[in-house]
Order: sequence, then structure tokens, then C-alpha cells
Amino acid sequence: MDDVTAGHLQELRRGTVVLACLVRLRTPEYGYALLETLGELGITVDANTLYPLLRRLEKQGLLTSEWNTDEARPRKFYRTSPTGEILARILTDDWRRLDDAVARLVNGDTR
Amino acid sequence: MDDVTAGHLQELRRGTVVLACLVRLRTPEYGYALLETLGELGITVDANTLYPLLRRLEKQGLLTSEWNTDEARPRKFYRTSPTGEILARILTDDWRRLDDAVARLVNGDTR
Repeated sequence: MDDVTAGHLQELRRGTVVLACLVRLRTPEYGYALLETLGELGITVDANTLYPLLRRLEKQGLLTSEWNTDEARPRKFYRTSPTGEILARILTDDWRRLDDAVARLVNGDTR
Repeated sequence: MDDVTAGHLQELRRGTVVLACLVRLRTPEYGYALLETLGELGITVDANTLYPLLRRLEKQGLLTSEWNTDEARPRKFYRTSPTGEILARILTDDWRRLDDAVARLVNGDTR
């Protein structure tokens, strides 16, 4: 795949990853498990992209985190905050509107 | 709307605008008419964002342009190139996959 195609694909996916994280983390999950879930869903995201994103979303107050030390290896669980929940709903609504617009364009139904 | 929300919304929309342009410009159109069509569809995009984007897509070989001088005011019509058509299909497929993934996440259907 050439760079131009890769760049446009990445741009299309970027916003979706934030939406996916906020929706998925309504149930607390640690980074690696989230990565796996998103991958299974077909939202391919690199660990080097996802982990900094999770920290950024936490800094923005959209996620909270908590260390779980029940198992041998402590894991940081992220969860969508109340502010993150508001954004999750805004982005979900916007996604639906965009999806409807794209569907109408693709089907040539624009008048 | 706060900056964080606005930023995430913009990120979600950004990739969609490229897809929308490539699909819509299968039929040649000039910038302002495209802006209006996208707006009617609910894909709000600023002229200051759209016009440079069209020039960028042309530079990338994804759009071609032609001046129409039939009317008093010459207008530059853009059209999706064969390369742009290939990208339009790739992005449309990816959009469908992402849409399916988001729908499953929102509905909690992830196992």
C-alpha cells in the first residue's frame, strides 16, 4: 500500500479509535486486553498508538485508571469517566450522522 | 463546547470528509457546490478546510480539475481520478468495517 492510501486510511480510523475506547471502557479493562478486543473487532491499532492515547484520554479527564494488584502482575485498568461518557455519546451520535451521510453519498441519494 | 470535545469531533470527521469528496466527485463539481452538498448531508466542513483539501487531493493525484468557462464566472470543477476511485473504494470498505465494529461495541456485542 502506498503512503497516500495509508495516510488517508489512518486518518479515517483515528477518530474511531477514541470513540471505540470510550465505549468499550464503560467496563474497566487494561491496555492489552483492550488492544485485543479492538483487534478482534477489526479496529487495528498499534500498542505504540493505543497506550499513549489512553494516557492522553486520562489526562483529558475522559478516562480514570486504577491499578489492580490481585494477580502476580499488577495491571492498570482504565475506565470511562462521567465526562468521557458524555463525549462517548456525542461521538456516537456524530458517528451515526456521518454514517448516514456516507451511506447516502455512496448510494448516490443526495437530493 | 469545550476544546477537548471539539478536537475529538474534528478528528472523527476529518477522515470522513476525504471519503465524502472522493465519492461525491465521481460527478464533477466545483468547490462551493460540493461544500453545499456536504453541508446538506450533515458533513459540516469549513471552506477554509475544504478548498485546501481539494488542492491537496489533486496534488496527490486523487482528483483532477478543469476550468469551466461557459458561464460569466469561470469555475474550477474537480473530479475523482481513477487513482482516487481506487482509494474511494478502499475507504468505503474500511468505513463499513469500522461502522460494523462501532455498532457492535455500542450494542455491547463483542464476544
